[in-house]
Amino acid sequence: MTDIVRADGRAVDELRPVTIERGWSKQAEGSALISFGDTRVLCTASFTNGVPRWLTGKGRGWITAEYAMLPRSTNDRNDRESVKGRIGGRTHEISRLIGRALRAVVDTKALGENTIVIDCDVLQADGGTRTAAITGAYVALADAVAWGREKKFIGQKSQVLFDSVSAVSVGIIDGTPMLDLAYVEDVRAETDMNVVVTGRGLFVEVQGTAEGAPFDKRELDQLLELGVDGCGQLRDLQTTALEADR
Amino acid sequence: MTDIVRADGRAVDELRPVTIERGWSKQAEGSALISFGDTRVLCTASFTNGVPRWLTGKGRGWITAEYAMLPRSTNDRNDRESVKGRIGGRTHEISRLIGRALRAVVDTKALGENTIVIDCDVLQADGGTRTAAITGAYVALADAVAWGREKKFIGQKSQVLFDSVSAVSVGIIDGTPMLDLAYVEDVRAETDMNVVVTGRGLFVEVQGTAEGAPFDKRELDQLLELGVDGCGQLRDLQTTALEADR
Amino acid sequence: MTDIVRADGRAVDELRPVTIERGWSKQAEGSALISFGDTRVLCTASFTNGVPRWLTGKGRGWITAEYAMLPRSTNDRNDRESVKGRIGGRTHEISRLIGRALRAVVDTKALGENTIVIDCDVLQADGGTRTAAITGAYVALADAVAWGREKKFIGQKSQVLFDSVSAVSVGIIDGTPMLDLAYVEDVRAETDMNVVVTGRGLFVEVQGTAEGAPFDKRELDQLLELGVDGCGQLRDLQTTALEADR
Amino acid sequence: MTDIVRADGRAVDELRPVTIERGWSKQAEGSALISFGDTRVLCTASFTNGVPRWLTGKGRGWITAEYAMLPRSTNDRNDRESVKGRIGGRTHEISRLIGRALRAVVDTKALGENTIVIDCDVLQADGGTRTAAITGAYVALADAVAWGREKKFIGQKSQVLFDSVSAVSVGIIDGTPMLDLAYVEDVRAETDMNVVVTGRGLFVEVQGTAEGAPFDKRELDQLLELGVDGCGQLRDLQTTALEADR
Amino acid sequence: MTDIVRADGRAVDELRPVTIERGWSKQAEGSALISFGDTRVLCTASFTNGVPRWLTGKGRGWITAEYAMLPRSTNDRNDRESVKGRIGGRTHEISRLIGRALRAVVDTKALGENTIVIDCDVLQADGGTRTAAITGAYVALADAVAWGREKKFIGQKSQVLFDSVSAVSVGIIDGTPMLDLAYVEDVRAETDMNVVVTGRGLFVEVQGTAEGAPFDKRELDQLLELGVDGCGQLRDLQTTALEADR
Amino acid sequence: MTDIVRADGRAVDELRPVTIERGWSKQAEGSALISFGDTRVLCTASFTNGVPRWLTGKGRGWITAEYAMLPRSTNDRNDRESVKGRIGGRTHEISRLIGRALRAVVDTKALGENTIVIDCDVLQADGGTRTAAITGAYVALADAVAWGREKKFIGQKSQVLFDSVSAVSVGIIDGTPMLDLAYVEDVRAETDMNVVVTGRGLFVEVQGTAEGAPFDKRELDQLLELGVDGCGQLRDLQTTALEADR
Repeated sequence: MTDIVRADGRAVDELRPVTIERGWSKQAEGSALISFGDTRVLCTASFTNGVPRWLTGKGRGWITAEYAMLPRSTNDRNDRESVKGRIGGRTHEISRLIGRALRAVVDTKALGENTIVIDCDVLQADGGTRTAAITGAYVALADAVAWGREKKFIGQKSQVLFDSVSAVSVGIIDGTPMLDLAYVEDVRAETDMNVVVTGRGLFVEVQGTAEGAPFDKRELDQLLELGVDGCGQLRDLQTTALEADR
Repeated sequence: MTDIVRADGRAVDELRPVTIERGWSKQAEGSALISFGDTRVLCTASFTNGVPRWLTGKGRGWITAEYAMLPRSTNDRNDRESVKGRIGGRTHEISRLIGRALRAVVDTKALGENTIVIDCDVLQADGGTRTAAITGAYVALADAVAWGREKKFIGQKSQVLFDSVSAVSVGIIDGTPMLDLAYVEDVRAETDMNVVVTGRGLFVEVQGTAEGAPFDKRELDQLLELGVDGCGQLRDLQTTALEADR
Repeated sequence: MTDIVRADGRAVDELRPVTIERGWSKQAEGSALISFGDTRVLCTASFTNGVPRWLTGKGRGWITAEYAMLPRSTNDRNDRESVKGRIGGRTHEISRLIGRALRAVVDTKALGENTIVIDCDVLQADGGTRTAAITGAYVALADAVAWGREKKFIGQKSQVLFDSVSAVSVGIIDGTPMLDLAYVEDVRAETDMNVVVTGRGLFVEVQGTAEGAPFDKRELDQLLELGVDGCGQLRDLQTTALEADR
Repeated sequence: MTDIVRADGRAVDELRPVTIERGWSKQAEGSALISFGDTRVLCTASFTNGVPRWLTGKGRGWITAEYAMLPRSTNDRNDRESVKGRIGGRTHEISRLIGRALRAVVDTKALGENTIVIDCDVLQADGGTRTAAITGAYVALADAVAWGREKKFIGQKSQVLFDSVSAVSVGIIDGTPMLDLAYVEDVRAETDMNVVVTGRGLFVEVQGTAEGAPFDKRELDQLLELGVDGCGQLRDLQTTALEADR
Repeated sequence: MTDIVRADGRAVDELRPVTIERGWSKQAEGSALISFGDTRVLCTASFTNGVPRWLTGKGRGWITAEYAMLPRSTNDRNDRESVKGRIGGRTHEISRLIGRALRAVVDTKALGENTIVIDCDVLQADGGTRTAAITGAYVALADAVAWGREKKFIGQKSQVLFDSVSAVSVGIIDGTPMLDLAYVEDVRAETDMNVVVTGRGLFVEVQGTAEGAPFDKRELDQLLELGVDGCGQLRDLQTTALEADR
Repeated sequence: MTDIVRADGRAVDELRPVTIERGWSKQAEGSALISFGDTRVLCTASFTNGVPRWLTGKGRGWITAEYAMLPRSTNDRNDRESVKGRIGGRTHEISRLIGRALRAVVDTKALGENTIVIDCDVLQADGGTRTAAITGAYVALADAVAWGREKKFIGQKSQVLFDSVSAVSVGIIDGTPMLDLAYVEDVRAETDMNVVVTGRGLFVEVQGTAEGAPFDKRELDQLLELGVDGCGQLRDLQTTALEADR
């Protein structure tokens, strides 16, 4: 598996260079500008004391997420969804995925009646925007939780985040499973999978799709293994970013 | 695994009663009213000669799908998406899933420049609506392809469908993996997975989500095995339905 | 008038075969799947304790209705109104008509502060969908009222429904007035009329439109007579359906 | 019937004062500002050479109509439909009614491949806006047809308008049938009917609705008679307006 | 500057004939039908006791404005914004401008917790619709304030309007600055400016745009001078209209 | 005027620190990430060969612009316009302003039948977002024009940009005119003005609004002088950025 070299010189099980610019936004309670190679996503976490009306009085918090792409984050310009007056299916789908991924590591009781809205805006897209978004969103979320604790909206001993979460794409190209696909790889992949994994190595989400030929159990296992390894590396990068002074 | 009995008396690896009423609609080129227990989905396939403008002249056909629920298909009435003026994220997501699942077994070159639109309307919902929709949609699709061949829009020897496809939900409840969750089971599941499998037993789509606790590889493997078995049974029911006189 | 035979062999003053499958939905408080020949409409009645805010505290209930067609209920597929993001004029018009027809036989004081929402979804369309919808909706409504009484949301002695209501289309084709037009007749009709009549034979709504040549008083009278007779037959079928055990 | 005097002093079979200001707009090819008492509707007819794409090459013209109310044409201000982003059911319904009424007197073959769009904007509403709109729209339409003939878009001998059309409301108040209801009467009416009648006295549209108690055949006949008489008076006023120099 | 004669015979510093028909609407608390030549705008002011929720309890009132054009107010018919389902940028921009202009002369404390909504509907457009709208809206506003005082919603001594406001367009055509451009002038103007001026001669808004060549300070000064003079004349016409008996 | 010191220590006639990161986007034909202090706007220019259908065959190009804010670019999070399904008035207004500003320095004949779409997305907002957007957009536009020339879509000798353009805000705070207002200053300003000036010092747009008290001619002149000076400094920064190697 190791002899194959990819277009950008990476090994099949190698991530693109990842950078996490924590605290990029001066206004958000938490934020991170994350890059997976040329994919760049600005993640902000907005903390509000209180919850939506339908959740009031239940002693639990609320986490939600929205994903969007700038019109010229891609090779060809896409019309703005605000101009079209409706959100596309792909946008909806990814927003929901990010929200589920984050909620999987949050104890909403410990969060108390507070709301955190995560915004993931893709400034530049080169494949893997949803996985970069999840990985960066966790960093923004962690900082927003810390902010809430500092401002006493969250109890000092409440363990809101009981694990971390990251995500990566994997896929099969010309029969070879590969980690963290760039856009040129993504369009050629026979099978495309996104895995969302906690810091402890458990699955939060597995979404595999046969874009070309259907896949068998052995291929699925290879992809999952690559994905879990990639998420482990991303977890370490998240930890390093969060340990630095903000 | 076999000692546990479910609310409705099923074994953990047992499907709900499945019925496929082929040709339910007098107008559609293909149709099926499918039931997975109390879940009832009307699937129609609309065949049109010609393709959308952006695909014209490429010698390939087009398959797309739309999913929707009647407002009172559920326990509590939901507002109509037409009245709200926008389609929700879940609807979008499932429509896209059904379309991908069907396209995975279609040779669009063999289909020629023809379009088939699949509509899956949930008349009654009791869990597993998307998997029932995919399973019924395949039957409607097969009939629409046969119609197109009869009307000479498709070449007599073209093998448009090179495999069949069906889908089923699986989940972990109180630590036990179970097949084909009814609604009351679905809301209690710690992990929820939908698998879409071809007649030959290959994966088209695997979508597993931790609703409660994240899951590990062993649980994932158990769920996949249950799902593949369930899809095998559904494939046989599809075959029986399609072999009957219409 | 009796010598003319129609395309489907009916006499000019003969209804198509009518079936009313009461209690089709397991979830709705009242429901009926009604057929006028090949026209099939699923009618559900959703009962909620309480009224919209603007009506609160006035001691009166609220009845409203929504009508829609499945995209492939017709010969050619129509785009979904949810996908188009707006409801068409025809849909609006028929929804309002159904609501008015039902409210004409309801004593909203007797209903108390309860809301009943009627949904009429056309599964298959072959002319007369709005009249089948009204006729079936009354059955669903009657069952929802019974449910509300059983659940003690409505007083045991309150007479909520002081009459029944049904509807039928009539039209003039090649100079001959005919009852209950099928689609092939409807498109040829010079004049098209829908009459909504109570069980006691009074008019709730009369909507006559000259599609071709304008019509005179004599023709109008003939149409009204046919319509009143047809509604009388439908009333008897409603009564039979409602007298059966559910 | 003649002893009853109405709030504004009219006899039960008397129209409100009607004025037709023909050619009110400098820009439209035809226009009329019509008043039925305090109800004032600006009707414009926009003539365009050519027809919508779906009608091209069939040798027929196209007539369509749109109705709207200014936000403060009523006693309480209504939100603009443009601001709400959707057109209400009532607006849709009336726009369609006006279009049907006008098309009933137009020979689209004689019109040739030309389009006339009628706009009826209610500047002040005091009951009967839809009937004033139809009556005024006919005048605007007649002038637009004349303009088209003058500009040679329409053949000099083509008889585009083979009849005229007007409309009026009638209703039963406290058991008495009355002509041309003002708003205060309209809200009290047990039965409300709009009749659209050609210059020759034939019906184009009859729309009767029981707002309170259902009505019987005798009441229906009384209303129709009042309506036909009223439309005859309106026809004479249209003729006078159209015979004046523009 | 005085030798140049315009298409309609005016001098460069001359307004078109201005008429203000105060109290045009029977229903609105204040109204004016204003004409600047062939430009005709119906302005209504709707007074409501109370303010939007977000302003409640602050002791201040609220003034807002909406502008729209009838579809055939222009030479070619424009699609209705209600039909398109969205408001265009120009409409939004002008609505906001009118609101700002009026708020500049209103003491919202003195208004108390009352809301006045201004609607400016262009019945006929021939250039300068936004400036006519502002000028007419002030008259409608003044009458609505008087109405509120009469009805005791506003204190008898509260000076709600501490100044008046009017607006006019100016522009440079073939190098010559001109006042109050008609449509044929407007499309030819190199520079187009709208000035909003109080009765005391102070600026509320200055919006100058180079449609053709950019402009210099000297030209800007000439335009401002013309505009201030024009607004002075309009102020006198407003005063005359408001001094007449209503 | 020079003794007053502002919250951030600037002199009244001093710009905030301005940075222009040219070529920030790998995909756009031209791009710049511009900062005016903490205000950061990503400007991209998308070049397409060809023009919209309505402009085809006229030998002229087309420039248009869209402006938007990320939801958490501000102190409090704003709902996304794509989620709300409509674009707000402010967004529309600024998009149109940016488009006009750029078109004022473009010779569309020289551009030929090519389209350039400018996107200005505010990543962080601290006052002056529209002026930063215009200033950055010019840099992105210049690079897109250079790209088009390099790719031979534009003639080698065509002078598409005959001048440069920049913009800055000015305002009066506590009676003192100040340059380039930060957000805390903007909310306190009595008068707020945006000036758009070409490299040669001519006005393209002057938009002054009295937020508090109306202003007089002397104040207007002071603001214009400050604005022209500020734009001169911005022009020099644009030139420096564009002279550097990309």
